[in-house]
Amino acid sequence: MTSTQGEFALLDETWSSVTPPAARRMLIAAAAAFSVRGYHATTTRDIAAQAGMSPAAVYIHYRSKEELLFQISRIGHGTSLSVLTAVSEDDPAARLAAAVRAFASWHAEFHTTARVVQYELSALTPEHLAEVVELRRRIEAAVRGMVEDGVAAGVFDVPDVRGATLAVLSLCIDVARWYQPSGRRTPAEIGDLYADLVLRMVGTAGR
Amino acid sequence: MTSTQGEFALLDETWSSVTPPAARRMLIAAAAAFSVRGYHATTTRDIAAQAGMSPAAVYIHYRSKEELLFQISRIGHGTSLSVLTAVSEDDPAARLAAAVRAFASWHAEFHTTARVVQYELSALTPEHLAEVVELRRRIEAAVRGMVEDGVAAGVFDVPDVRGATLAVLSLCIDVARWYQPSGRRTPAEIGDLYADLVLRMVGTAGR
Repeated sequence: MTSTQGEFALLDETWSSVTPPAARRMLIAAAAAFSVRGYHATTTRDIAAQAGMSPAAVYIHYRSKEELLFQISRIGHGTSLSVLTAVSEDDPAARLAAAVRAFASWHAEFHTTARVVQYELSALTPEHLAEVVELRRRIEAAVRGMVEDGVAAGVFDVPDVRGATLAVLSLCIDVARWYQPSGRRTPAEIGDLYADLVLRMVGTAGR
Repeated sequence: MTSTQGEFALLDETWSSVTPPAARRMLIAAAAAFSVRGYHATTTRDIAAQAGMSPAAVYIHYRSKEELLFQISRIGHGTSLSVLTAVSEDDPAARLAAAVRAFASWHAEFHTTARVVQYELSALTPEHLAEVVELRRRIEAAVRGMVEDGVAAGVFDVPDVRGATLAVLSLCIDVARWYQPSGRRTPAEIGDLYADLVLRMVGTAGR
C-alpha cells in the first residue's frame, strides 16, 4: 500500500476539492481498494475498513459504491484534462510535446488512480458514464486540436489526424498499466521519451 | 456475450490445444467471466454456470480458479508471441511494419482475452507469474531485435532502442483496452495505421 499512499499524498491538490476530510479519506481508500481487487470484488465494508471508519459512515457521504467510483472517475478524468489544457506553449510542436510530456508523466505518477479510472468504466451507471464520456471527448478534442494546429501551420505531416490522436492518447494512457515505481525510468523521463516519439509520429520537419 | 463468443470462435485454433473439449469450454467461459467482472469477483461456480457444467466439474480439469487464469495467460501470451515471430519479411522496415500490423490487429480481434491477460497478472501465483514474465521477456526481445536490426542496417534512427520498443509494445497492447467491435476502424485498419505510426517512430528514412 505504500506506493499507493505515496501517490495519493502527491495527488493532495486534486483530492482537496473533496470535502469534508472524511469523504476524501473514503475516496482515497476506495481507489486503493478498487486498484488491488477490482471494483466488483470490493465491498463498501472493505473501503470503510481501509479508511478506518465504520461501514455506516460510507453512506453518510456516498449513496453507493458506484458513487465512489464515479467521483474517482470524474476527478481523475478532470485532472488529466486540466494537465493537457494547462500547456502554454504557442509553437505547435512545442505545445504538443509539452502536453504529451505532462499527460504521460501524469499517468506514471498517478498510475493507481488511472488504472481504476480506465478499467472500471463499465461499472458506472449510464448517467455517470455519460458524464465521464463527455470528459473523455474533451480530452480527445484537446489533443486533436493540437495535431490539427500543427498540420494547419505546415509543421506536422499527418495523413490521419483522428488515428494519430487516438495513438497519442493510447500511448500515454497505457503508461498507467506498465509503470512501476521501481522501474528504470522516472515519470519525467517517460514524459521526455514520449514527447520525442510523438513528434516523430506527427512527422515534425524540424526534429 | 455475443462479441466474446465471436472472439473465442475465431480463436478456435489457439484454444484447440486445450483438451478435452470440456476443459476448453471451461477456459473460454472463465476468460469471458473474468473480462466482465474481474478475476477476484468471479467464482468457480460462475465459470461452471457459464460453461453449462456443474461446479465440481471444474476441479476435474483445473486445480483452482488461479489455474484457469494461468492457462488463459499462458496461451494468450504464447499466441501473441507467435503472431510476432511468424513475420517472414527480410527488410527491417517491412518486417517491423508486418509485426506491428499483426500484433496490433491481434489485440483488437482478441481484446477480451488480451484484457484478462494484461490486467490480472497480479492474481497469478509467483511460480505462474514467473512463467508468464518469461514469455513477456521473449515478446519484448522479439520487438527489440527488429528495432536493433533496423538500426544496424542504417534504416532506423532510434536514440533509445529500449524506450522505442516499450512504446511500440504499449501502443499495440493498449488496443485491447479501447477497441470496440462497433467502432470506426476494423482490426486490419488499426494494424495498418499503427504500422505507419511505428515506422515514423523509428525514423525510417524511406517512408
